Amino acid sequence: MSYIGTLNYQWAFSLINYFALHGVTQAVISPGSRSTPLALACEKHPDITTWIQIDERSAGFFALGLAQQECKPVILICTSGSAVTHWFPAVVEANHSYTPLLLLSADRPVELQHCGANQTIDQNFLFGSHVRDSISLEHADETLLKNNWITLQAYGKSLNRKPGPVHINIPFREPLLPRRFIAEELNRFIGQLSEQIITTDTLAIQSSTSRLTIAKTTLQLLTQKLETGNGIIICGRLTTQEHKEFAIRLPELAEKLNCPVLLDPLSMQRFAQSPSAHFIYNYDHFLKQHLTHSNNDNNPFTPDWVMRFGQFPVSKNLMRYLQHLECHNILINSFGEWLDPIHKANTLLHTSPAELCKQLLNNPLKANQPSCLNQWQEADRKAEDKIQHTLETLPLLFEGHVISALLKSIPDNSFLFSGNSMAIRDFDTFITRSSASGKNLAFFGNRGVSGIDGNLSTFLGLLANGQQSKKRLSHNKCYGVALLGDLSFYHDMNGLLMCKNLAAMGYNATILLLNNSGGGIFNYLPQAQLDDFDKLWKTDTGLDFQHSAKLYGLDYLRIESTEELESKLPDVFTQSGIQLVEIIIDQKTSVECHKQI
Amino acid sequence: MSYIGTLNYQWAFSLINYFALHGVTQAVISPGSRSTPLALACEKHPDITTWIQIDERSAGFFALGLAQQECKPVILICTSGSAVTHWFPAVVEANHSYTPLLLLSADRPVELQHCGANQTIDQNFLFGSHVRDSISLEHADETLLKNNWITLQAYGKSLNRKPGPVHINIPFREPLLPRRFIAEELNRFIGQLSEQIITTDTLAIQSSTSRLTIAKTTLQLLTQKLETGNGIIICGRLTTQEHKEFAIRLPELAEKLNCPVLLDPLSMQRFAQSPSAHFIYNYDHFLKQHLTHSNNDNNPFTPDWVMRFGQFPVSKNLMRYLQHLECHNILINSFGEWLDPIHKANTLLHTSPAELCKQLLNNPLKANQPSCLNQWQEADRKAEDKIQHTLETLPLLFEGHVISALLKSIPDNSFLFSGNSMAIRDFDTFITRSSASGKNLAFFGNRGVSGIDGNLSTFLGLLANGQQSKKRLSHNKCYGVALLGDLSFYHDMNGLLMCKNLAAMGYNATILLLNNSGGGIFNYLPQAQLDDFDKLWKTDTGLDFQHSAKLYGLDYLRIESTEELESKLPDVFTQSGIQLVEIIIDQKTSVECHKQI
Repeated sequence: MSYIGTLNYQWAFSLINYFALHGVTQAVISPGSRSTPLALACEKHPDITTWIQIDERSAGFFALGLAQQECKPVILICTSGSAVTHWFPAVVEANHSYTPLLLLSADRPVELQHCGANQTIDQNFLFGSHVRDSISLEHADETLLKNNWITLQAYGKSLNRKPGPVHINIPFREPLLPRRFIAEELNRFIGQLSEQIITTDTLAIQSSTSRLTIAKTTLQLLTQKLETGNGIIICGRLTTQEHKEFAIRLPELAEKLNCPVLLDPLSMQRFAQSPSAHFIYNYDHFLKQHLTHSNNDNNPFTPDWVMRFGQFPVSKNLMRYLQHLECHNILINSFGEWLDPIHKANTLLHTSPAELCKQLLNNPLKANQPSCLNQWQEADRKAEDKIQHTLETLPLLFEGHVISALLKSIPDNSFLFSGNSMAIRDFDTFITRSSASGKNLAFFGNRGVSGIDGNLSTFLGLLANGQQSKKRLSHNKCYGVALLGDLSFYHDMNGLLMCKNLAAMGYNATILLLNNSGGGIFNYLPQAQLDDFDKLWKTDTGLDFQHSAKLYGLDYLRIESTEELESKLPDVFTQSGIQLVEIIIDQKTSVECHKQI
Repeated sequence: MSYIGTLNYQWAFSLINYFALHGVTQAVISPGSRSTPLALACEKHPDITTWIQIDERSAGFFALGLAQQECKPVILICTSGSAVTHWFPAVVEANHSYTPLLLLSADRPVELQHCGANQTIDQNFLFGSHVRDSISLEHADETLLKNNWITLQAYGKSLNRKPGPVHINIPFREPLLPRRFIAEELNRFIGQLSEQIITTDTLAIQSSTSRLTIAKTTLQLLTQKLETGNGIIICGRLTTQEHKEFAIRLPELAEKLNCPVLLDPLSMQRFAQSPSAHFIYNYDHFLKQHLTHSNNDNNPFTPDWVMRFGQFPVSKNLMRYLQHLECHNILINSFGEWLDPIHKANTLLHTSPAELCKQLLNNPLKANQPSCLNQWQEADRKAEDKIQHTLETLPLLFEGHVISALLKSIPDNSFLFSGNSMAIRDFDTFITRSSASGKNLAFFGNRGVSGIDGNLSTFLGLLANGQQSKKRLSHNKCYGVALLGDLSFYHDMNGLLMCKNLAAMGYNATILLLNNSGGGIFNYLPQAQLDDFDKLWKTDTGLDFQHSAKLYGLDYLRIESTEELESKLPDVFTQSGIQLVEIIIDQKTSVECHKQI
């Protein structure tokens, strides 16, 4: 039998190698001793780029961001004990946002379980129902080295059918390293081992997922339904994978059906290079007025059918509007999920949005007659004018100005990341047709579970991705801008540790921190009436985030007025490195401005 | 039926009131909307002190610290979704350190589950095998208001038999607040509701745990064993509850048996006001030499029996020593746990350490003849002299100097908190009989799972506890000193948000940050030989923690030499508020100094 330290390394490297053979290119590692074989195997593998983040919680979200840009599994590695549990917030977000993650937790061997050993907890099934699969590997074993089917299954489960996190728990016995006593020799030996495994072991099981084609009868029924009267399409967040082809098909379908398409900001379609005339942006603004008209047959805002793609949209007014409608609701979901918190769906089509569009476009399909499109376009235009006018007449700085200025000066082909709570709602309100037009921006947000956690790390993961594969060093790096509130910023400050690295590697990005002294969203809830509001809900941190910028070596700029915003923000986006721009917003002003809009 | 908002509040208040009736006095709340009834009920209850911490991860560890001082359950409250998952690291530590926590997670109602609703995940059984119980409550219900047996059971399960965390998941339907439209009236109404519930509902189920008395035959067998020859007692970490009476009995037992007692730093006994002559401190230092002598009958370091209390000790040399011994191993554990990672125990006595001492002391028991005590004492003295001498002759600043200086100037009756990795091992080495004598310090560390996470929050929770019950505002506040490394400090910086509050309330404490530029403990592992050592294991954050002090409003002092340490440290402990002292330690110097010792 081989020496355990050597076997441990071979075992770990073969596992990582299988993932690499399938195209995995990124690993995020939190330091530890027990995870030594895994960390070293990633570092030594020529096709894996390694990222180090000491805080496992931030590491989890950084990996989430990396994985979301391409919808490709990313490896996470940490040591045994409580370390693993810090991944949990990112795991639930990955579960609900269909983000593939390979969670490789090192564990202590069976003889150290359940006997009070250090840094040892029960790591099996640690993430319960929140992972696609929980695999508990045995100790390193020579017979399994060349046929590691279980890890390949894990890869498949993270990616196929419903992408998401897969947990693989891997116990290691000591010694954790091969036995070479001179440092130089040990380094060389590990290098040789790695090469051996790569060259001799290139066979990998392939799995393929069939296209989810729609049965002919289903398609006929759907076509009939769509032809019966007026309808609207609603487009929520999709995975990057789903988005690609759909972005081309959707405008074609809208044209063919001649119906309005309501675009959630996370649908990414608002920033299309040449947006369709059918796209509607500011429904959140004007749908408030149409809640009570649902029984009027001639009302253009009472459609006969609603077709919904992706996750449920952000807008509360859209939600209320849909709740009031009595019409046929069709959900299209790639993963067969009923994403329907209002319980209005009559039909779920388990197929990809792009596939559905293709099928509908390949069949004869009459356009909506008479179309309600004009009225929707008209309402959208009016809403945009109103928003634009209000922005111009409100002198005091609030979120609307920030988004407006941001969209004016952000470089084309960048990506945006939105925090939750107020940030995403403000994007929903203030991304209008003209402010978004022609920008070709990608748009992200953690809307799986919509937490205020892990936002900075997810953003930095999105920033880092796709550019750093050792094979593709020449790729251009994408500029990124994050917009988030002070509570979200505070929650994941540890994530900023990655900034120094990223800046040194030539990444450029800006974090816009909307500091409105606590939980701004709570101002719109009844809790705001209570004596205990400031203490229990608003929870102003009182922190001067300038020090945070200094701690992590970020360039810092503070903006306190609309004048400063307009004069200073455009320059920020031309700077290199990672900028923190703190924008001070008075909560009372903000509430008043939002009410005016 | 009552209005849902009113019922929600009554439901939450009655639940909190039951806990309060049983003596729960503290709640740690992370802000959110869904948790409104719970947060408000805690805030309105006259016997509950509320603490706000935005980051649920730090909140979890802060509650852990609060609970550990008195071994009394502490309430945690957060909103639905990913928020709950941030408690996981503190939950596993609480599980393994026997710390009672009541985890009250607010949840969305059943109609918003499994349909893509915002901030909604499957929260049932979220913490798997790591909690004593997982209780999924129904929605607020009038019939259960006055007989909430399930919450009482939860209280009991968190505290009795084996203390630990209990998870109670509580769904709430909207509206979350009672219906009063004028703020003033709403506040008054909520106040009235609370009073009503407190006054009409004072009945509470009582549960009592029997003392774990030892069967006579067992005691006879044990007595026989202890009388057969020489033995040693080893004392590891106990809960505060277990410690109290045991601290009095242990010296009496040692005297009666005339045997050495090896004290782990977390046993707290090293800091006893008048330490027994039987206590041995520096076994980690001298046991290295006694590993190979196990077959020599006349060797005083080859006992016939070993009696072990509490958790397995920190010292690796002690572990190796015990692994080499062939003798009878008796474990005493209050919770019936085999805490024996070396698999040497022959007997487990499921009883409290104090109870065992009492029983043995009440029975005739011959002292060890001839006793090996003298030789152990002699070895301990020599080790102490060696340590003292080395400390005096090593000119360059390293951890030993810090602990020595700390013990010299820390005020009596304070408490110490040790970080994991190097900090606790250095305490183990450098707390000698003379440096510890007469200090009467309490000593804590997160040794359930020994993570580098949550250390600052646990420390601040320990600091805050017991002093802030609204009924006992006059209590003196205990001075606290934490000693931890830079990776541990970085990992839980968010926890420092509590400092401003604590300082304003008159708490005084010092955080000693041993900055040795990354994971110092890894220097002692074979990984240190590898080319990738700096990147994968040492992981220097490169942060200037001065900015962190500024961010959180701490007083800051930097120490870089033994001279500065000796001249400046004593003054630090006389300052009010919370001080951060960053002590710069060169890793190479540190490794060399440790090797000399």
